[in-house]
Order: sequence, then C-alpha cells, then structure tokens
Amino acid sequence: MAPVFKQIAIIGVGLIGGSIARAALEKGAAGEVVLFDGNADALKRAGEIGFGKPAASIEDAVRDADAVFHCVPVGAISATAKASIGAMKAGAILTDVGSVKGNVAREFKALGRDDVHVIPGHPIAGTEKSGPDAGFASLFDNRWFIITPEAGGSAEYVEATDKLAEFWTMLGSKVERMDAQRHDLVLAVTSHIPHLIAYNMVATAYDMEAVTEGEVVKFSAAGFRDFTRIAASDPTMWRDVFLNNKEAVLEVLGRFEEDLTALRKAIRNADGQKLFDTFTESRRIRREIIDAGQDTSVANFGRDTSKKP
Amino acid sequence: MAPVFKQIAIIGVGLIGGSIARAALEKGAAGEVVLFDGNADALKRAGEIGFGKPAASIEDAVRDADAVFHCVPVGAISATAKASIGAMKAGAILTDVGSVKGNVAREFKALGRDDVHVIPGHPIAGTEKSGPDAGFASLFDNRWFIITPEAGGSAEYVEATDKLAEFWTMLGSKVERMDAQRHDLVLAVTSHIPHLIAYNMVATAYDMEAVTEGEVVKFSAAGFRDFTRIAASDPTMWRDVFLNNKEAVLEVLGRFEEDLTALRKAIRNADGQKLFDTFTESRRIRREIIDAGQDTSVANFGRDTSKKP
Repeated sequence: MAPVFKQIAIIGVGLIGGSIARAALEKGAAGEVVLFDGNADALKRAGEIGFGKPAASIEDAVRDADAVFHCVPVGAISATAKASIGAMKAGAILTDVGSVKGNVAREFKALGRDDVHVIPGHPIAGTEKSGPDAGFASLFDNRWFIITPEAGGSAEYVEATDKLAEFWTMLGSKVERMDAQRHDLVLAVTSHIPHLIAYNMVATAYDMEAVTEGEVVKFSAAGFRDFTRIAASDPTMWRDVFLNNKEAVLEVLGRFEEDLTALRKAIRNADGQKLFDTFTESRRIRREIIDAGQDTSVANFGRDTSKKP
Repeated sequence: MAPVFKQIAIIGVGLIGGSIARAALEKGAAGEVVLFDGNADALKRAGEIGFGKPAASIEDAVRDADAVFHCVPVGAISATAKASIGAMKAGAILTDVGSVKGNVAREFKALGRDDVHVIPGHPIAGTEKSGPDAGFASLFDNRWFIITPEAGGSAEYVEATDKLAEFWTMLGSKVERMDAQRHDLVLAVTSHIPHLIAYNMVATAYDMEAVTEGEVVKFSAAGFRDFTRIAASDPTMWRDVFLNNKEAVLEVLGRFEEDLTALRKAIRNADGQKLFDTFTESRRIRREIIDAGQDTSVANFGRDTSKKP
C-alpha cells in the first residue's frame, strides 16, 4: 500500500506526536516524518530514538509537509499554528490531536489561510505518561479517531478529509466523523468531567490529611487510589481542556451537581431505595460499555499496557 | 505454628467470607472452619468447593466457634448477629469485616452478651466480584486490616484482641488498631465518597445518553471507563455503607462540594493558574501514595488480579 502522505510534520514530540510518527513510519502511512518541538532536549531525544527527522525551525518542519499535525496542549496550538502557517504549502492539511475541537477549529480558521485544509481531529487514546520516550506505534490500534471537518466543504476539501481519515485508518484507528460542538459535549461527559472530579476528590482528600493525621495516604483503599491514577495526568493539558471547553464542561458539571445533591439528600434521609436504584443503574451502563467493546471485564484501567513494547 | 483458633465460624460465604475461610485453612490460622449463609445455594456451593463445613443453622455454625466472623453487608450484620448471639459460647470473639465500624460496634454491644468479646474489624481488600467462587486465599496478603477494639477493656479482652490480630497477621495482613470513629472518617475520604462520586458520574452520563444519542457509551474514554469500573461494585453493600456512615460521609461530601465549587468558579472565570495549581497538587499526593506502598505506578486498578488463581 502506498503512503497516504509523502511527508508529514509533527509539531510536538510527546506521547501522541511520538506515537503518530512511529506508527506512520512502521505502518507505511507516511513516506517521511519531519519533527519539531519548542523543547530542544525533547526534539534532540526524538531524533536519537529515530522516529523522524528533526527540523531546525518550525517553518522548516512544515514547508514540504502534505499534512501538519499539531500535537501540543490545546492552549498552545494557537501559537504553534500561527508560527508555522505562513510556511505551509497550498493544499496541505492543517490538523491536530487536541481533546477540544470547537475552539481549535476557530483558531485555525482565524489564521486566514484559505488555501490550506483545516481538519481538526482527536484520537481517543493515551496513557498517563508523557515525553518522546512514551510513544509507541500501537497506541491507536482499534481506538476511535474523531474527525470534525467543516460542513459543506469543496470537493478538494472532502478529498483531503478522506485522505486524513485513510491515514488514521492505516494507523489502526476506527474513524468517525462528528460535528465539533457535539464532540465537545460528548467528551465533556466521558472524559473532561470525570477528570475534573478525580482532581477535585484528590484535593479534598489532601485537605483531610491534617484532620486524619496522615491516614488518608496510609489507608488509601481501592476507590481513592483509582482517582489518584486519573488525577496523575498532565496538569497543563487538562488546564487547557477546561479553559477551551468551558461551555460544555459547565453544562455537564451542573447536571453532575444536581444528581449529587439528590444522592446527598437520599443519604441524609436514609432513603436506601434511592441509593440502591442509582447504584444498580450504574452497573447496567457499565455492562453496556463492555458490550460496546470499549472495555473488558479485566481490571487494567483501560490502558492497554499489554500492548506496550 | 499452632492455629490461633481451634474453630472459627464464617457467616456469609461471599468474596470476603470465602477468602477468610480459604486463607485460614491454607495458612493454618484456624483448625476448623464452619460455614453458614442465608442463601442455601451459596452455602451448598461453598461446601462443594470445600473451604469449610456447612452448618445446618446459624446457631449450629457458631456454637463451638472461638471466633465468629460476620461477613455480610453492613446492613445485614445486625440480623445475623442477633440470630446467632444466643448460641455463642462464653469467651468467644464476635467480629465482622464491614466497611463501617461505629454502627457495627454499637449494634454488637446492644445484643447484651457481656461474656463475648466484641472486636469489630475491617480488611481493606476486595475485588468487584462476589459470591463463594470469588474468594481466594491470598486476598489479604500485605493488605491493611484495621481493628477497632473498645478502649479500656479487661485483660481478657486485650488478650482476645491480640489473638484476633494474630489471626489476621497469619492471613497475611498488616494489622492496625484504630478508634472506630476515626476509621469511619478516614474510610469516608479514601473509599466511600470516591465510590459515591463514581456512581453519581455514571448516573449523570446516563442522563446525557439521550442528549448525545448513544455516543457517551460509544466514545467512553479512559476517564469515564474507570468510573464505571468503580461503580460496578455491589449495590447492596454500598447502600448499607452510606446508610451506616452517614455523618462522616456528609461531612466529607460537604468539603468535596466546596472544592468543586471553587474549581467551577475557576473554569467560569478562566482562572488557568488555579486549575494548574490544583492539578499539580493532585499529582504530588499520588506520588505520596506510591511512596507509601499503597499502589504501584503500574496500571492495574489496584486489584491484584495477578495474584488470583
């Protein structure tokens, strides 16, 4: 199978950028991979590992690329795109891997290059690790890749979208097209609010450390341990997610708080039936998720560590 | 090493009861194990597996036991203890494995048998599985067992407490003495509230299913999947925990809600620094938990599945 793209540029060589580079070369989805990272040490390390060719500048990295992947935290995409947009060739694809799509699409469009194809994307994959050494080629295997193209694009735009979808399919992903706003709401429910709550739970526990004289850490049972694992994710990435998906996050958070108030009331009133019904319903939706193939009943925290080389 | 107890009774042959029975026989901590369960099928199955001798009645089960372990949901302990207390021999130990200790201690004392030793206990161990087949002998290896004896007991009582501690040490646990009220507050932070929040998050997501036309389940990313796993635990057990640890649960929940309000405000006001600081602090406390040996950096959801036969 011929490479989908002759050359791609990866801006940001962390877990996701590094994994795209490795997967693209290993699976033959790109002929050549050019790398850039604002962190000189990370860029140097990426070159040593050998999953692409480090460029001297961000402009050099994108100059001959058929597709440019901005793999930096959502809050930094605007800056990296701005710094490189002028050097992109006409007809190239401008894309990303951020967890928020509405804002990214707006920022890309605001750059005013009507001759490049803006196609934001989001691979639903990752681990809590970061840096160039964290990447691996099978990270996207059998994972969703959500693509949020503009509605009603030109024939050339539709063709570019199909090529990007083909690229991600070669990387192992299941590709799904979605409206950017819909994406941001769905992800607020399935990922953003769960992370916010995990972070919050850990903060509350930290406050209780003084009250309990260190016993929270000592006796951290299964429930709390699992929260700290979620909350071990990159602070910069998550700050940017909440700042950039404010509307959907606040909507889902409002619903979460309403539901929690109802549970609190049930506890205060010793309403065992309400508690039992809510807990039973939770089990049912978990079963649906297992049936939908998004998880197994095996306890692995959903991280696919078995795949990691 | 001689058995700590000549004979023990296990009331309730689920995950914990079954594991105590297996571990006690395998590690020689008890000479004989007599079993009872209100569910005749479970009791029969336990007899077939062969980790103890099924008794014809709950009274028969406890009659000659040196220690009686009530291994049923916290809300059912009062009934099983009441049904069997009259048949217990003088000087025997009355204990349990529930996640709440204050209420259990009060219920045990209210039975009025001053000649048996009331020593509530809580092994911090478990999986999301239940039933007689779920138990295994290594479940308690290197796990905390918290014992909450009364303050200022007789010499005979202190001796009984030491024997129960010795029993759990032989089962592989690290034994810690604690005040019952302190136990209930620490566990509210580390286990009860995390479970409540996980259940609540799944309930909120379920409400959003209609809004997102099934896409919550389809695209459940890592964060949400982990919550559904926590929320897959036994509804009866957790209903009883919240009904029996109301005071501590409401206190910690109040603090959680205050902290969440502060994060919501930071998102609304686009206060990136507050978000970044909170998320960074969460990472630090996770590091403390790993250093305290309560978890590893390996993603296994803290379930010790590797140990399971």
